[in-house]
Amino acid sequence: MEKIKVGIIGYGNIGKGVEFAIGENPDMKLETIFTRRDSKSIVPESSNANVANIHDAHNYIDKIDVMILCGGSAKDLPRQTPRFAELFNTVDSFDTHAKISDYFNAVNKKAIENNHISIVSVGWDPGLFSMNRLLAESVLPNGQFYTFWGPGVSQGHSNAIRGIKGVKYGIEYTVPIKNALERIRLGSDIKLTDREMHLRQCYVVAENGEDLPRIEREIKGIPNYFLDYDTSVYFIDEEEFKKNHSKMPHGGFVIHRGKTGKDSTNHTIEFSLKLESNPEFTANVLVAYARAAVRMHKEGLKGAKTVFDVPLSYLSSKDSKDIREELL
Amino acid sequence: MEKIKVGIIGYGNIGKGVEFAIGENPDMKLETIFTRRDSKSIVPESSNANVANIHDAHNYIDKIDVMILCGGSAKDLPRQTPRFAELFNTVDSFDTHAKISDYFNAVNKKAIENNHISIVSVGWDPGLFSMNRLLAESVLPNGQFYTFWGPGVSQGHSNAIRGIKGVKYGIEYTVPIKNALERIRLGSDIKLTDREMHLRQCYVVAENGEDLPRIEREIKGIPNYFLDYDTSVYFIDEEEFKKNHSKMPHGGFVIHRGKTGKDSTNHTIEFSLKLESNPEFTANVLVAYARAAVRMHKEGLKGAKTVFDVPLSYLSSKDSKDIREELL
Repeated sequence: MEKIKVGIIGYGNIGKGVEFAIGENPDMKLETIFTRRDSKSIVPESSNANVANIHDAHNYIDKIDVMILCGGSAKDLPRQTPRFAELFNTVDSFDTHAKISDYFNAVNKKAIENNHISIVSVGWDPGLFSMNRLLAESVLPNGQFYTFWGPGVSQGHSNAIRGIKGVKYGIEYTVPIKNALERIRLGSDIKLTDREMHLRQCYVVAENGEDLPRIEREIKGIPNYFLDYDTSVYFIDEEEFKKNHSKMPHGGFVIHRGKTGKDSTNHTIEFSLKLESNPEFTANVLVAYARAAVRMHKEGLKGAKTVFDVPLSYLSSKDSKDIREELL
Repeated sequence: MEKIKVGIIGYGNIGKGVEFAIGENPDMKLETIFTRRDSKSIVPESSNANVANIHDAHNYIDKIDVMILCGGSAKDLPRQTPRFAELFNTVDSFDTHAKISDYFNAVNKKAIENNHISIVSVGWDPGLFSMNRLLAESVLPNGQFYTFWGPGVSQGHSNAIRGIKGVKYGIEYTVPIKNALERIRLGSDIKLTDREMHLRQCYVVAENGEDLPRIEREIKGIPNYFLDYDTSVYFIDEEEFKKNHSKMPHGGFVIHRGKTGKDSTNHTIEFSLKLESNPEFTANVLVAYARAAVRMHKEGLKGAKTVFDVPLSYLSSKDSKDIREELL
């Protein structure tokens, strides 16, 4: 069987995770890593992949079945994905919830015009969490879902900490409140405030001579990010920060409670993730959907798609008969 | 918008659950309940649905968009589904794992010949559990999944108890062993025996004057069902049995642990269900897939399908744009 030839755009944490994940999938082959940096400055960590400049990607149209875009949602993807959807099937992890509609439409236009498949907003939230929300809501329409995030590092909140004057290093952990989780699992129709669902724990290395109470006060006062939560700020030294806070764990829980039947029988559907590395897991989800993108393209489909549009069998390297016999 | 017209074959616990679930989905309408019994003997519990004899179903070809088959996997479905796949789009909850391949092939043949969609083996296991196995395995190919069932009533094991001489009533609860669940969640690459994963708890009402130790011994000795497990047998009286053991709760856990990256980072994906009524929940899953069957049929698709073949968006009554904006 001919292997699926994959390209990677962007060689940060997710790009490296994609590179490794392709090696774990025997039906796939990493063709080339594209970078904005000098291509000679990059040595692939876990493969012998070719490295090329992103501006040369158009020369690889016949060599790559699907391009996995590993850039950031703020600046890279809104610019890159519509452009690369002209040249390739693409998969990305665009995760700015509020802008997904505009992003989807821009990518969809280019993908349709060029007969490509672009699966957008792939990952775990948006991604696997979204799928479980849709599945649970469809099965139990008389119900309600709750999403808890963490324990894990929020990039957005960590960036907000780093924006405060006098902060040298900073990281935020979002922690679901156990008591709230248990109440949701057991009870029904509970309304919870933001403060009742999550704690915010911040670890900060301050610049020398800074006023720590002022930094703590300013962090706790940041609206949206910290003001509406019980926020703790811990000042630590640089050595401890680098030793204990350099990983990117994350995860969370999607819990849907619903009722059925004339006696209002209760049911709980729960999906949870516990991830030691958020970018590596996201990378693995991207790779599974890259397989699906190639298959949909071969079937003559085109346009932007989301995880809601892809049959689960398309994620697997196994054929349908084996899937039925082994997993159903 | 024209409503999806649904027929029900079989009016047991699942059929009644389907009837109620259709009422919870405003885009659907229950057309007719078909029964082998005298149609006049059945009064629908939660609708004004028409009731007809199963032998008259062929007169309803133009009145029904999808038929939900609510019979049993042992005797009803293997006979009924291929037959009704000639006349209608169908959805069923066939759950005899070992026979799914033959069943699928028989239904597939008739559905293809007659341009119908038949979604087979819909429910939670096979069904939602199977979907999570496939999803998790595709995302983390370097990993392993574990399925725990319960706490809940196993029909097969309950039937095995009732097959013992001197048993008037009997019910079995499968209980996942908490310690094993926790070890799986925390550790990796653990091999567990059947006995280490589940307990079997049996509640039995014996006939008057029977030898209780003999009944207990015989239950515990039934191979496959009880011999390889720590089985408890509790003798209770009929009143207690009817009061406390007439419900059909069930559920369970699918836990997948996998590794990514060069440092073998660990990840855990967990899906769990806690159902107060197994048949009512199964009925709700069937109804969501009935919507999908009609949509696939309208798109010109045909043949037998499983939950692996159906995009999640097809389960929802919402359009794709709303799904993206609300749930992604």
